[in-house]
Amino acid sequence: MYISELIKRKRDGSELSKDEINYMVNGFVKGHIPDYQMAALLMAIYFRGMSATECIDLTMAMVDSGDKVDLSGIEGSKVDKHSTGGVGDKTTLVLAPLVAASGGIVAKMTGRELGHTGGTVDKLESIPGMQVELPKEKFVEVVNHIHVSIAAQTALLVPADKHMYALRNRTATVDSIPLIASSIMSKKLAAGSDGIVLDVKTGVGAFMQKYEDALELAATMVDIGEGAGKRVVALITSMEQPLGYAIGNAIEVKEAIDTLRGDGPQDLVDLVKELGSDMLLISGVVSSRNQAIDIIGRNIETKKGLEKLGELIEAQGGNREVIENPGLLPQPKINIEVKSKSSGFVEKIDARDVGLASKILGAGRKTKDQPIDPSIGIYLMKKVGDKVEEGESLATFYSDGNKDKIEPAKERFLNAYSIGRKRVKPPRLFYARVNRNGVEDLK
Amino acid sequence: MYISELIKRKRDGSELSKDEINYMVNGFVKGHIPDYQMAALLMAIYFRGMSATECIDLTMAMVDSGDKVDLSGIEGSKVDKHSTGGVGDKTTLVLAPLVAASGGIVAKMTGRELGHTGGTVDKLESIPGMQVELPKEKFVEVVNHIHVSIAAQTALLVPADKHMYALRNRTATVDSIPLIASSIMSKKLAAGSDGIVLDVKTGVGAFMQKYEDALELAATMVDIGEGAGKRVVALITSMEQPLGYAIGNAIEVKEAIDTLRGDGPQDLVDLVKELGSDMLLISGVVSSRNQAIDIIGRNIETKKGLEKLGELIEAQGGNREVIENPGLLPQPKINIEVKSKSSGFVEKIDARDVGLASKILGAGRKTKDQPIDPSIGIYLMKKVGDKVEEGESLATFYSDGNKDKIEPAKERFLNAYSIGRKRVKPPRLFYARVNRNGVEDLK
Repeated sequence: MYISELIKRKRDGSELSKDEINYMVNGFVKGHIPDYQMAALLMAIYFRGMSATECIDLTMAMVDSGDKVDLSGIEGSKVDKHSTGGVGDKTTLVLAPLVAASGGIVAKMTGRELGHTGGTVDKLESIPGMQVELPKEKFVEVVNHIHVSIAAQTALLVPADKHMYALRNRTATVDSIPLIASSIMSKKLAAGSDGIVLDVKTGVGAFMQKYEDALELAATMVDIGEGAGKRVVALITSMEQPLGYAIGNAIEVKEAIDTLRGDGPQDLVDLVKELGSDMLLISGVVSSRNQAIDIIGRNIETKKGLEKLGELIEAQGGNREVIENPGLLPQPKINIEVKSKSSGFVEKIDARDVGLASKILGAGRKTKDQPIDPSIGIYLMKKVGDKVEEGESLATFYSDGNKDKIEPAKERFLNAYSIGRKRVKPPRLFYARVNRNGVEDLK
Repeated sequence: MYISELIKRKRDGSELSKDEINYMVNGFVKGHIPDYQMAALLMAIYFRGMSATECIDLTMAMVDSGDKVDLSGIEGSKVDKHSTGGVGDKTTLVLAPLVAASGGIVAKMTGRELGHTGGTVDKLESIPGMQVELPKEKFVEVVNHIHVSIAAQTALLVPADKHMYALRNRTATVDSIPLIASSIMSKKLAAGSDGIVLDVKTGVGAFMQKYEDALELAATMVDIGEGAGKRVVALITSMEQPLGYAIGNAIEVKEAIDTLRGDGPQDLVDLVKELGSDMLLISGVVSSRNQAIDIIGRNIETKKGLEKLGELIEAQGGNREVIENPGLLPQPKINIEVKSKSSGFVEKIDARDVGLASKILGAGRKTKDQPIDPSIGIYLMKKVGDKVEEGESLATFYSDGNKDKIEPAKERFLNAYSIGRKRVKPPRLFYARVNRNGVEDLK
């Protein structure tokens, strides 16, 4: 097999065979196929796309490039969840323990911050003592024991993705739906769950800004997962304004704890119930969505979800007392009120700008290996639809006091807010549900 | 400037600026831009194409990457000629001395064999003693002295093209009209002539098999050359069957000598007159095409062109006696008649298959650095439109007697011939002339 022939075939719009895709992935990982040929091939894929069969073959070839997590020793249907990334998206911190408390088995592998969005691994690491970099044996053991674990993806899981992503990042071939879908799904499949619920974000704060792209990505991932014999459901949800009020690391853990105690922001609670009901449904724990939503609601009221989070923190080496006393989480040096320069109603909050403001303030990394200051973040006081007076706080910045960060962060943050005369409704949160039966429109 | 941003802009269909293109070419040649990013960019160019301005900027950046030939010390308008490559295309060997004998100044840089076609350098090197690898000072000196020189392109001329071509060849990005056009034109512009006549071949034996592609390539090259302040004319001519009767090296030199003596095949003579008249016209030597064709015809009759070839051979170290005694050229060990298996009329000869048969017989290189056996080749006895009887010779193979080459060459050669019942006309030789005024259809 000649790789240049293979590039030519893809360039000319032909479908690559399973053997050809295996050759491409293995050859690249093993170094037989040089970067420059892989780069040309990836760009040809960018332009020509991939068929459903090619996407499945690519995903499976990537899965086979590394370690797999074997959850088969755990009885019952294991379920995973993935979000394509949003600002203030602490959903997993609420959802995973809540679904486990409701009878599901949640084996969740997750990543660090990417672009303008935070990462669940970074958020969890703000809990004193909490270990997220688990060996896969430990991960399996925790799931087995308490029916929930959240662990960082290891580099040994899908090394092909790691190599390909690094190359894509330098060759403008990241924004390709087949490549994104196979990258996400290869990691989900290697992580060993039986069911996968995907939260595909769309809007100004999401990687897929256009609904049509989010829908195509969702459908591609469902096809890949179902093609691999898994149960997969994708929700397409809004990421116009940030989710909830907290953006950062410790600050988001605190909001997750509040939510599990029954004091959560409405959008986050709604999202947790919708995603959670899908997780319970595909796990076979419940037989109807209403039943699922009832159980989840009850487990918030009774604080069983919060207790499960405590168990999870303890099982992974953290201080479980934070669930009763969030003051144990890292606290910022100073709080700064960011005040509105005009009166009116909040018409729009650009989630992307808020995410970037939070990074500028210090809640992100400057370089890949830098540690994060977990105490830094932004707490919103106003969301879309809220009335605001001139001089009233739009948000509180949790800061380390460094003015070189505060001023530009403030500028970026204020830029995110559109304040007008007319009261607007909060934006729609749910767009659609995609599963093997097709697309269901959600109101 | 970030190269990944530049790749993204081209990927998304934006036009690259002159600065960006300079950055890309210089960065690549100097090794600041790695192969994999250049490969992705080339593939994006393959899909998105390049505007006329981008093509000019790319060509000039490539020209500036290396040495240039300075012909400014030679008085009068210097003219170059380039063919995109065909089978049996010995046109330059006839045209260059004939145009020089007719008052033109021909400074021609040329290449070696490529794919299924032969190279002028290889053909000339079959003349005993002939030097084609000339230092550029020697090239200028010969042109100055006898108004014609034919030299091999040196690696110092347009190194960017050399590097880019090597990468394109391994990444399926050769077949891109803007990249082909800038590759050819950068070498022509660096070679220093004031006018350039291009012979763009189309048909089964050409690199541009479709007329539309040949036309686009011709127009792009004319735009580039005129954009750089040169006079450029392109003829689009047929490469369905081989040109003339001889395919090989010494055998083509012999046919070129015959043609200069007045015994040339009609298609070659017609092509030489048409291209030659354009060369004389853009040089300002003549004021009308008729006048040009008259002069060229006369210089064949009077053998002034042949004498000029003798001067050229002598000036470049060769034995000029070959023009009177072609028996001094390398002679094959044996001649083999290849006979027709049926009677009828030759309807078609696939030039590509004939070219490949000649390579199989031994007239080409197996690897880049292997020497060629100049004595080997194919002499056609029948061309399209000719009557043929079963058992009559279709061609004579000039062979080294190696049966392992002869049999597969014969098979490939016979495959090239379509013999039918009805007499067909020889195929149209001229399609169109393209210059800065547009496209002129030729009958």
